[in-house]
Amino acid sequence: MEHLEAATAAPVRFDTHPSRYVHWRIEVDPPVARLVMDVQEDRPLRAGHPLKLNSYDLGVDLELADAVQRVRFEHPEVRVLVITSGKDRVFCSGANIYMLGSSTHAFKVNFCKFTNETRLAIEDASQHSGLKSLAAVNGPCAGGGYELALACDEILLVDDASSAVSLPEVSLLGVLPGTGGLTRVVDKRHVRRDLADVFSSLGEGVKGKRAVQWGLVDETVPLSRFAARVPERARALAEASPARSGPGVELKALEGRYTDDGVEHRYVSLKVDAAARVASLTVRGPEDGEPASAAGMRERGADLWALRVFRELDDVLLDIRFNRPETGVVVLRTRGDLQRVLASDRALWENREDWFAAEVLHHMKRVLKRLDLTARTFLAVADGSSAFAGSLFELALAADRSYMLSADDGPRLALSPLNREGLPMANGLTRLQARFLGDPDHVDRLAWDEAMDAEAALAAGLVTFAPDEIDWEDEVRLAVEERASLSPDALTGMEANLRFAGPETMETKIFGRLSAWQNWIFQRPNAVGEKGALTLYGRPERPKFIWTRT
Amino acid sequence: MEHLEAATAAPVRFDTHPSRYVHWRIEVDPPVARLVMDVQEDRPLRAGHPLKLNSYDLGVDLELADAVQRVRFEHPEVRVLVITSGKDRVFCSGANIYMLGSSTHAFKVNFCKFTNETRLAIEDASQHSGLKSLAAVNGPCAGGGYELALACDEILLVDDASSAVSLPEVSLLGVLPGTGGLTRVVDKRHVRRDLADVFSSLGEGVKGKRAVQWGLVDETVPLSRFAARVPERARALAEASPARSGPGVELKALEGRYTDDGVEHRYVSLKVDAAARVASLTVRGPEDGEPASAAGMRERGADLWALRVFRELDDVLLDIRFNRPETGVVVLRTRGDLQRVLASDRALWENREDWFAAEVLHHMKRVLKRLDLTARTFLAVADGSSAFAGSLFELALAADRSYMLSADDGPRLALSPLNREGLPMANGLTRLQARFLGDPDHVDRLAWDEAMDAEAALAAGLVTFAPDEIDWEDEVRLAVEERASLSPDALTGMEANLRFAGPETMETKIFGRLSAWQNWIFQRPNAVGEKGALTLYGRPERPKFIWTRT
Repeated sequence: MEHLEAATAAPVRFDTHPSRYVHWRIEVDPPVARLVMDVQEDRPLRAGHPLKLNSYDLGVDLELADAVQRVRFEHPEVRVLVITSGKDRVFCSGANIYMLGSSTHAFKVNFCKFTNETRLAIEDASQHSGLKSLAAVNGPCAGGGYELALACDEILLVDDASSAVSLPEVSLLGVLPGTGGLTRVVDKRHVRRDLADVFSSLGEGVKGKRAVQWGLVDETVPLSRFAARVPERARALAEASPARSGPGVELKALEGRYTDDGVEHRYVSLKVDAAARVASLTVRGPEDGEPASAAGMRERGADLWALRVFRELDDVLLDIRFNRPETGVVVLRTRGDLQRVLASDRALWENREDWFAAEVLHHMKRVLKRLDLTARTFLAVADGSSAFAGSLFELALAADRSYMLSADDGPRLALSPLNREGLPMANGLTRLQARFLGDPDHVDRLAWDEAMDAEAALAAGLVTFAPDEIDWEDEVRLAVEERASLSPDALTGMEANLRFAGPETMETKIFGRLSAWQNWIFQRPNAVGEKGALTLYGRPERPKFIWTRT
Repeated sequence: MEHLEAATAAPVRFDTHPSRYVHWRIEVDPPVARLVMDVQEDRPLRAGHPLKLNSYDLGVDLELADAVQRVRFEHPEVRVLVITSGKDRVFCSGANIYMLGSSTHAFKVNFCKFTNETRLAIEDASQHSGLKSLAAVNGPCAGGGYELALACDEILLVDDASSAVSLPEVSLLGVLPGTGGLTRVVDKRHVRRDLADVFSSLGEGVKGKRAVQWGLVDETVPLSRFAARVPERARALAEASPARSGPGVELKALEGRYTDDGVEHRYVSLKVDAAARVASLTVRGPEDGEPASAAGMRERGADLWALRVFRELDDVLLDIRFNRPETGVVVLRTRGDLQRVLASDRALWENREDWFAAEVLHHMKRVLKRLDLTARTFLAVADGSSAFAGSLFELALAADRSYMLSADDGPRLALSPLNREGLPMANGLTRLQARFLGDPDHVDRLAWDEAMDAEAALAAGLVTFAPDEIDWEDEVRLAVEERASLSPDALTGMEANLRFAGPETMETKIFGRLSAWQNWIFQRPNAVGEKGALTLYGRPERPKFIWTRT
């Protein structure tokens, strides 16, 4: 049932452009850009559920994700995002409940994961690009709407009779706020836990002075002063952030070719064997002639290999998540020239003070985090002409296991400065630090300056297995087949635990603690059963709960 | 259905004694104590599932919990626990699958929570009492068996044809190891994540040298040398730990009176209103005459108020978890004299270098952690003659909210050194630090030396609400009723997120990340559906999975 629904739906495409936005407008007026949410209720991504009251579905949120990313690359001179509503009487009422209620469990989970990544991207822009954000909350702000505001650096709430911030999920829907709300209330805004408890179990939310006192928003102003106060606060945020100047780099459309069997991009290919539930993902290194200077990179723009290849990879990861729900194993390969990958990495690293090189690095980092969080088994396979070097070797480090062919003229792998820093995981560690958690010095002792063959890589602990030519095919094939035969749920849980050894951060808590609980609740009869609160939302009947506390 | 099964089962009692153990033996030979697991397969806690191959159920595990605690108090001279099997051909095959497969979801979750707390208590004994532990793995060691070994400081594995360590849950049962296995493999033993991935998806496990190389065990020795090697390693561990001398303090039976409507202990009472799904938990402070010196406290032994009251509280918390599955709200009250509670706290704190006072403090700490992890709403209510001071005020800090009566002659609350340190949460913070996460200095500015009335406590942020006499009854009653009406699952998830703001540790990861995922998987058709792997375990049919990756 579940997989049929997902499989028969039209595929979701993530490659978009402001000229094609339906629900958002970007109004650039440096140093400020206003992102205006004006959801067209009759244009949901999937027919059936009008998006009333500025509620959102995936189609709305993927435009927001595109907009935030686009401002970073295309408008480096912008220092502040003002996120506000284009509607008079509502800021945002959160994720559309009817859409959620009628979605498969897998879609709900992946939808929440994507919206979480988008909120974290807003925070990443603030922390790493000095692109600050102000939520100009000009009306009621509920659930996912408040969670969007929570992702901003500052929340300005209009003080009128009706505008409250609220998390009504627990009391009205029998689920949790799915986009980091509980975590950000206590861990980012440091709302006292007992007040957070009151707030999160109170359907109507909190408004006015009390919202400020409790720390739920930063300021409230009467409606009469709201319009003037927003640009004042935006200017103040802009002045506190170091200036950057353009011109920006246009993020051209990727124009991938999508088929039932895969995706074909310039540098990234996905081929899906649906019957085996296995996908082959190949990432190609740069051609000759990648620029080494900051100016050269900016000139190359969206065609710069390092930017383009990770944008393509991002697109393919989202395609796997949303459009290939039964694909359980992704075999990761690379192709190309080790030295060219290393040269590209070095150019980025040496120019990391340049805004564009820095944005490219942060983008790589975010895509690799998306890989870490993708609920599929990744097996890295280094065979023939593979190019697992530097930033591409991070793919193997992010994979659940890696296999490297041991042969006289076999593949090599190599490290670059980007393996040492620059591409941290959500927990703040590099993938090498996470890999050698028990022996931090091991990272220093690695062969930083020379390519390694399979024996050397195995001895250094950088690959899992290094079969020789006789065993190679059987060993890889068996690993893939065996993995594809296991319970997909158990694998998702296992991988979510083994991938994040070491410290936890607010970011990993959102995915590890909050989302896992939310996923649990999303399955419970008390939410999604016939008499569950989510099922019955909007109907006159009251939910019937099984009262067992678990 | 689910709640009926739980309600009709006989209640579980946790107060036990070695003379009544069925499945474990304690063999004390200072500085070593051997805990020998010899599960009587025909004596499960609930009829129906023989406990074959040293597999365990709650009845087995509650004896282990008692044994570890008892050694700390009754045999302070013991420096090493050797945990081993009394059977020839198996160490432990983990939690009994048939018991798990036929249990309610709520029971499974609570069972795993308790076994996790017991494993953490073994680690707490090592870290805080210098009571080291050695898993003497004398045979196959699977699933929960290996997780028990992982809780020990050292794992010694016999090297023979059949003895492997394994986590077969993912591959054989379609669930996760439920007792911290995945987390401890990568976060405690620092097994490389790709090797951990191979190990955790491999039903047959890893043995011999490879188990040592991968870091899964510390040493393997052939069967011929095993019996001699165990005491050698135990002695080495004992020598590395500071000596302590007895005599110990006997943990006398609590002898509570249990009825359908509650539990009556000397200092702790529980009264359950089943129809309202609300329990009233009252904790009474000490009488006059508690000892202030270390010698006096040791002499008072198990009758020392501070030890007895927290043992009683522990017993009642477990009673709520296992025997009152539908009780959703627990109203916490205290009764007694503030100054006597403060004096008891001071005596413990001033004598914290004494082994017994230290054990009492660590016991308090563990019971408060049990409260933090109990999936019920706790509302602290400070009325009339309440005694929320010091260690008892921690109950209010652990509660989700607190209400304090504001009246001229109303209740007071007071702080003791135990609120400042000594009773940390699982995340390493004190409850005051967690409460004022955004303003750490606030803790220093609190009134450490004087009792506070409701106004002062409210102003200091130490209570949530302080209604006056006119509003008091209505406000408390409404809060209880409203809370009891909400979805129990959503509340469990909400509380699990709001209670643990701030850093995460291995301990909180086990409950927050691992258990939440495990709870999710325990609900999935791929595990517990008609064709799920857990359902079909031991039958000839193979599971049928829904392949959607979530």
